[in-house]
Formats: sequence, structure tokens, C-alpha cells
Amino acid sequence: MPPKKRAKTKSWQDIAKQAQNDRTASLPESLVRICLPPIPNLPPSQQRTRCLPSPTVSITSLSPSAIVAAITSPSQPTMTASQVVTSFTLAAVLAHKTTNCLAELVYTDRAKSRAEALDATFTATGHPVGLLHGVPVSIKSHIGVKGRRMPSGYVAWYDDASDEHVAPDDALVVKILERAGAVVHARTAEPQGMMQLETVSNLFGTTTHPYSEVLSPGGSSGGEAALLAMGGSCIGVGSDIGGSIRVPAAACGLFGLKPTAFRVPTTGWAGTPPGGDGIVTVLGPMCASLEGVELFMRVVLDAEPWLVEPALVPMPWREVKLPPRIRIGVAWDDGIVLPHPPVTRTLGDLVARISGLPGIEVVDFPLYKPDEAWAIASSLYLTDGGASEQAILAASGEPPTPLMQWILDNPGVKDLSRSELEYWLEEREEFRIEYAGHWNRTGEWSDVAGRWEGTVDVLICPVAPWVAMRHGTAKYWGYSALWNLLDYPALAFPAGRADGEVDVKGVRKTFMSDHDRENWELCKWSFLYRGLCTNRVG
Amino acid sequence: MPPKKRAKTKSWQDIAKQAQNDRTASLPESLVRICLPPIPNLPPSQQRTRCLPSPTVSITSLSPSAIVAAITSPSQPTMTASQVVTSFTLAAVLAHKTTNCLAELVYTDRAKSRAEALDATFTATGHPVGLLHGVPVSIKSHIGVKGRRMPSGYVAWYDDASDEHVAPDDALVVKILERAGAVVHARTAEPQGMMQLETVSNLFGTTTHPYSEVLSPGGSSGGEAALLAMGGSCIGVGSDIGGSIRVPAAACGLFGLKPTAFRVPTTGWAGTPPGGDGIVTVLGPMCASLEGVELFMRVVLDAEPWLVEPALVPMPWREVKLPPRIRIGVAWDDGIVLPHPPVTRTLGDLVARISGLPGIEVVDFPLYKPDEAWAIASSLYLTDGGASEQAILAASGEPPTPLMQWILDNPGVKDLSRSELEYWLEEREEFRIEYAGHWNRTGEWSDVAGRWEGTVDVLICPVAPWVAMRHGTAKYWGYSALWNLLDYPALAFPAGRADGEVDVKGVRKTFMSDHDRENWELCKWSFLYRGLCTNRVG
Repeated sequence: MPPKKRAKTKSWQDIAKQAQNDRTASLPESLVRICLPPIPNLPPSQQRTRCLPSPTVSITSLSPSAIVAAITSPSQPTMTASQVVTSFTLAAVLAHKTTNCLAELVYTDRAKSRAEALDATFTATGHPVGLLHGVPVSIKSHIGVKGRRMPSGYVAWYDDASDEHVAPDDALVVKILERAGAVVHARTAEPQGMMQLETVSNLFGTTTHPYSEVLSPGGSSGGEAALLAMGGSCIGVGSDIGGSIRVPAAACGLFGLKPTAFRVPTTGWAGTPPGGDGIVTVLGPMCASLEGVELFMRVVLDAEPWLVEPALVPMPWREVKLPPRIRIGVAWDDGIVLPHPPVTRTLGDLVARISGLPGIEVVDFPLYKPDEAWAIASSLYLTDGGASEQAILAASGEPPTPLMQWILDNPGVKDLSRSELEYWLEEREEFRIEYAGHWNRTGEWSDVAGRWEGTVDVLICPVAPWVAMRHGTAKYWGYSALWNLLDYPALAFPAGRADGEVDVKGVRKTFMSDHDRENWELCKWSFLYRGLCTNRVG
Repeated sequence: MPPKKRAKTKSWQDIAKQAQNDRTASLPESLVRICLPPIPNLPPSQQRTRCLPSPTVSITSLSPSAIVAAITSPSQPTMTASQVVTSFTLAAVLAHKTTNCLAELVYTDRAKSRAEALDATFTATGHPVGLLHGVPVSIKSHIGVKGRRMPSGYVAWYDDASDEHVAPDDALVVKILERAGAVVHARTAEPQGMMQLETVSNLFGTTTHPYSEVLSPGGSSGGEAALLAMGGSCIGVGSDIGGSIRVPAAACGLFGLKPTAFRVPTTGWAGTPPGGDGIVTVLGPMCASLEGVELFMRVVLDAEPWLVEPALVPMPWREVKLPPRIRIGVAWDDGIVLPHPPVTRTLGDLVARISGLPGIEVVDFPLYKPDEAWAIASSLYLTDGGASEQAILAASGEPPTPLMQWILDNPGVKDLSRSELEYWLEEREEFRIEYAGHWNRTGEWSDVAGRWEGTVDVLICPVAPWVAMRHGTAKYWGYSALWNLLDYPALAFPAGRADGEVDVKGVRKTFMSDHDRENWELCKWSFLYRGLCTNRVG
């Protein structure tokens, strides 16, 4: 049979329009009708109260365990999985109208029947299916949901001329979550190529911050962050190679965990295969509550995913037993870019709050060679110098978005020879060993014990040198990418809120670097929540 | 200052002669005098009884825990650490005279004073220093022992024109063992470049099997194996990238564990840095008793080496709780090379023995795509096509040894481009996932449990398709290298002994491959012990 010939008639604009139409069609008409039109730049809680029925607001404010408890109470369930998922889907419609955060909903043909099945099981057995019984979960759209396109923000990968980017099955992490009772109801937007700290693509446009149209919710898991911050999902699954879970979590006041590599399975995603990664992309949870982060990790690791995906470390989720005394290191800045005033002020508030607590000692922790860290990390991100990315753009003719162009133009991004790649991999390993030494030297070597004692237990530092950025300006990855290079687990958590009255820009005459100067100029846009990064947790 | 000029006058023969003289000088005169000259081809136990004083034979037959108990008995120590290390060093002299297994002894200027210090500590405190108090440990010579050369079997790396290959410090694993009370007394020979399943170099010559001059003890940790089999050491530290711990352990009737990668620290060795490794070299224990293997792993992991070498997985040594029923898979051959008769016969004996035990089920386990495994592994071993190896040979002018030439000529060994390297890394990852699926399908998928149930718990298969080979003929890595590619832990253990009466070669008219034919021709040399490989243990 001759190969099926097909005239390449569709422009990238046509494909993008098709994607957006598909997306609109995925929003259930019945729910769209209930949701009132949002008013721009209203804080999320006011927006939700204004546009959603009051029971929807209540239900979508619940934590994961509260949802499970309400649905599966042995004495008297107060709601059903179907009610819960419908409520979150309705809130997702509002979130999307406000922030353009969705790739699509999978309510009508998936979540609805799944929730009904859960309700039927519970009625029949009286037992929850698992720890996540009835909890709505949203999935960043490069992670496989059976039969759905995984475009990674590229127009070309949405083209229906090929099934190559259609998920043949649910990703392993999706299967594990659903086996524990979760209900996948939404897939979220991601930026072109995903190597961006914001969420802009030619496919779906610009995802905005729940508080303000002119700001970004961060990226690349910014669709998740905007959706979760608007109560449109209970737990979100994001991914992170340089800050893509933590930066949007921080920008939107959420918890977001970048686990150590090879903990959460990646089987069934669209992304670089793990073998080829000098810096490994990880999947991880995002949630309005810390509980959701822990629940996600527990469920995923209880499933022993290493028996199917052998790159994973066969290590269960472990309760951390806190020692009687904890030493907390604080990194105020990295010596290259000074964080914006609300970041430093809130970090100061936090340090003041915890310094007084019994058993807690707080010490300064200087970050080690952040410039070298970026030189290594940026050399390992796109080892072909961005040729693959350029080729995918060329396939549809779409132009690069500004921050895609920025990473492609980064001096570290080069087409490496094999020996250059091996050189940078060795540099990475050396740097990791040096960093362990740097960390150990916060304590003292004990000859008797044969180990370093009294070292810092956990590190708190800014997730990024900003709070939430204007579109197209989130360029400095240094604060977040460092922990990917080192492969330390890192949790972004909300620690306070920017305050326009208090957090004044101030006058600086000298700057630590050109990055610093550029970042400082953008300071006036720095407000809202800010998360902080902790390490060696979990 | 102008660079120090130095005429390159020394031939590689001169350097090798110097190395051998240094080695001879390291043998303590007093002990050399005691040891009677060995008779060629006498079995080790007879040789030891003939050439060594009877107390030395007794002491060097003890297991690690028996040694610790004897030295540190709270009521009545029956010997001192000094006596023990002196006895093992004397046995090492005999082992070396018999098999040419040493790189050098480090008795006079290290082990002796170290043992005396241990004795003084015990006398003063009444407590052992650690779990290995007074246990003599030998170290493969590419693993750093402070101030000593780490030549990796290369003449050029022994040249005293440079200090580059002199260990500036003990390797981390050496430090950990000695902190637990071990005494390093010997450093063992290794083959040129270490990518060989025997132990031959131009630097130190050919290491022979304790039973027979014409046979190899295997390699690359064959110096360790010969030394341990002759009672010249209690625990040995070897390394393994394709069988280098297990093949010599099997050839010499020892236990040898290839742990999963990133368990035992490699800081302070001479070898490729971990960042550049598609197949990771691991360090692991060799011992005449299983107890020594477990003790080594416990001591190393109790030291939490991941706090210094962050590539290591932060996971303690775990007791394996055996389930009430165990399924044991048996792989009889890999479909490419048929093992020699004593291997298959002993495997059959073992299967017959365990099949009757309560709670044990034995099933056939077909190995999965061994040809593909070798294609991937051999592509990832020497990613520059052997150019580095050639350059090191050229630096001294020494010729390649036969098995070095064999690996350099292997069709899989190519100078890879970056994208080829990334391709093979992805193939490796895919293969690992396929293999996990192959393993899982020995059981059945349970929808209720959300996992595979009743899968094989452990796999037994030949370490190699031979027992002990003639020098220069140990070419087929397929049986052992598979587990490096998959990164499964694998233990070689003695399971029987070849028997010239029973294990007759037999007539075969058809062969599975050219490798098979070639290997079968060598069959007449196949006798002595044979170990077996188990997986998913530890």
C-alpha cells in the first residue's frame, strides 16, 4: 500500500484554533451555564464567592482528607464522589475563565462516570477504594491520560495528522492515583516546550495569575497552579526540571514538592526519556495543603512503582522523626540576584517567628558557587543546543515564545559533543560532592562517631527572586534550578504575602550582576504570595 | 619557572620491573622466610597445610565474626588483632607465591601498626572499635589507599614521573571499613584497563588460579579471588562493571556481591567518574563466607556514606523478611552460549536440592533478549571507542593484552556521537523497563491489589558459561554483564564443584552461535568450583 498522502494545508494558527475549540467543547455546557462571568483582577476568594454557588465554594475549599472523610464516613457520608468532582469541575470552569489555565476538562467522558463508579462501590462495600477516594486530581497535560494529546505546549504535537502524541494509556502515576480512588477531571496548560518559568504557548495562549491578568502564575506547571489556587482541583500533578513545580506554587501561594529524581514514576509521559537526562525532570504534587503533598507521595510510593519502572529507587515513603534539636539554615540571597523586597521581608518574618521556638536553631547558610551551578545545569538542559526544539517549532511554523527564545539563546545552551556531554556530567557529579562537603561543614567532623555532626538539617531559601512576575520576564532560574542540579528534594510553601505598603522597592545604586539590575527593575510587579524552598525534607 | 624537563628514558619494561621490585620489597622478609615454597597445582588447602605453620592455617580459616569474637571476647580474648593480621599476611605471601595475586602488601608500614593500635584500644577500653575489629581486608588496587599508586593495570599509571595516580587519601570505603575496625593489609592485582574477565597485565604479569597454573582465577577482581581462596585475606573489596566481582568469585569458590549501583561509595578510586557512566562500575565485597558479604554491606551502609557522596541512595541495609512461600526462577542458559557441563550439572543438583524444601517453588525463567542486552551494554562500556585506553597504552608503549584487544575489537565498542550516546542510554532505559515487565509476567496482574502478584522472588543462573578458564579465553560476558545493564544486585555463591569423572564434555553437533561453538571447544578446561548468580536479594 502506498503511504497515505496528506496535503499539509493547516497553518499553525488553524491547529491552535482547533485545540482551543476542542478545549471549549470539553467544558460541560451545564456547568458553564452555572458559572457567572468573572471580573478581572479580583482576588480568587472574592471571585469564587461571586461566581460560584455557595456549596461549590465550600466543597472546593476542603482538603483531600476532609473530602475522603466526608464521602466515606462509615456512619453518615455527607456527600458523594460525584458531587465533589462536579463541584471541582465547576470551580475549574471559573478558574479557566479567569486565568486560561486548562488544556481540557475530562469530566463528561471520564471523571463523571469514574465518580459514579466510586459511589457505587462505596455503597456496595462500605469501604473506600483507597486513600484518595473521590479526590479530584488535575494533570499537567504532557502526562498521559489515555486517548488524549500530550502536546508539551507545541502546536505541531497537537496536529491530528499523527497519533504519535496521543497517550496510548494512562501514565503510571495516573493509574496509581486512580487506583487509590482519585478522579482525574482536568488537564492543564503548559508553556511551549515546557522549559519556561511561565505558561505561554501559541497553542493555548497565556495563562494568567489568579490575582491579576498582567502577572504570570509562573511555570511551567502554571496551569496547575492557577487551577489549584482557584479551587478548581484538589491535588495537581506537575513536573519540574528547573523550578517548574516550585515557582508556580510559590507564585500562587501553594505547596509544591519537587521530589528527588527516580521517586515518582514518569512512565507514560511525553518528555525526554530518563536515560538521556543530565538533569532529570521529576513529577511531583501541588496542593493548597501540605497534607495533599504527603498523601500523594504516600499513595505513589505505597504502590511500589519501582517494580514496573525499575529506574525508581525501591524506597517507601518514610515518616521523618524530628530530632530534639533542629538546625535550620537560611539562604537570604545567592549573591547574583537580590530577591525582591517582599521575599526578603517575609523570609525575615519567618526566621523571626521560628528562631524563638524551643529546639530550633537558625543559622545563615551561604549558597555555594551559584554561578558554577548554572553553568553546569544550563549545559545539561538542551544537549543538542535546542535543535530538537527548533525542529518541532519548524514543523508547524509557529514562532518561539519570548521565554523559549531566552532559553535557546542562553550562553550555556550548546550542541555538545559526546565528550563535552561526559565532561558536564562529571562536572555535575563533582559539584554535587562539593555541595555535600559545603553542607557538612555547617557541622563538625567527629572522629569518634566517624561522621559530621551538628550539620544543618534543613535549608530555607527563596524559591525565586520574585513573587509573581509580569509575563515574559521570569528569566532567572538560579534559585530553583540549583536543587535540580543537586537533586535535593525541595518544597515550596506559602510563608506570607506581599504587601504594597510595606514592601517598597527602595533605591539601590550598586548591583551584584546584570541579572540583578534587570530583575530589580521589575520589582514593582512583585506582590502577592511567596513560597519558600526547603531542603532535605522527606 | 620553566617546566621541569625530564627525558623519557624509561621503557615500559623498566617501569614494570620497578613495579615488581616495589612489590617484592613490600613482602616482609620475616614472613617470606617462614612460608615454604609452594608446589605447583596443589589444591589450596593442601598447599596451605604444607607451606604454613599450623596456627596460621587455623587463624586464616576463620570467618569475620569468629575473628572479631576471638579478639574481643569480653571474658578471654584468644588472640590479638596483631596475631590475626600477621597470620593473614603470611598466608597472603603464600597466595602470592602460588598465584601472583598481589599488587603489594601494606603490612610493614600500615597494617602492623594499625593492628597494634586496635589491640591497645581494646586493652584500654574493653570494647571493640566496630563490627570488623581486627578483620584483615584486602583492596583491589584501583581503590585508593593513601600514598599508593592506583595503576588500573596500566604501566603508564605506575610511572613515578607523575603523582597523578597516587592516592592522596584512603578511598571512602577504606575509611569506613577501617573506622569499623578492619585492617587493610594487602592490595591486589588487576588486569590491564580492568575491562577483562581475567587478571593479566604487563605491569604485574598473569594471576593464576589457586588450583592450577594454566587456569585463570577470573577477573578483573581475580587478584582478590586468588588471595581470598588461599586464605590470604578475610574480606576483599572488588569492583564490577560486567562480571568482575562475580566471575572470579565463581571461579574460585567464593561469595561475591555486585550491589546495585550507588550503594557502596566509590569516592577515592581510579576509574571513570560516575557522571560519565552509562553502565556504572560498582564496588562490592568478596569473601569465603556469606557472612562477610553481609557484614561488609552493613558496615558500609551504617556509615551513611550518602552524606559525603550524594550520588548514593540514602537507604540503610535492610533485613529481608522471607515470605512464607518463595518462587525461585532458574535460567539454565541464555540461548546464545551453552554453559559447560559442570555448570549445568551443578545447577541441576542445586535445583533438585531446593525443589523439595517446604515453601519453595522452582520455575524456569527464560532470560530475555540477551543479544539485545549485550548490544546495549557493549555500546555503553567505552563510549569513545577505546581511544582513552589506546592513549594510555601509547603513553608507555606497552602492548594490549589479549583480552584488552578483544574488548577494543568488540563490534559494540564505537566512538559515539552525543546523540548516539543518548540513543543508547534511552535503549538501556527501555530495556530495563521491558525486563521488569518480563519479570512481572512470571506472576499475574491483580486488579484488586493493583499490582503483579506471585512473581518470581529470586533468580538463579550461571555466573558465566564456564567454571575456570584457560588464560586468554574468558570472552563471553553475556551471563554476567546482563545484571550490570539491568542494575540488579547479583550474588555469586559456591554451589558445588566440577568433577572430571561426571562432567564429561559430550558430543554436540549443532551450536546456538559462534560464541557457543568457541566456548564449547574450551570445555575440557572447565572444572573446579562454580558459583551461581541470584538476583533481587538484599
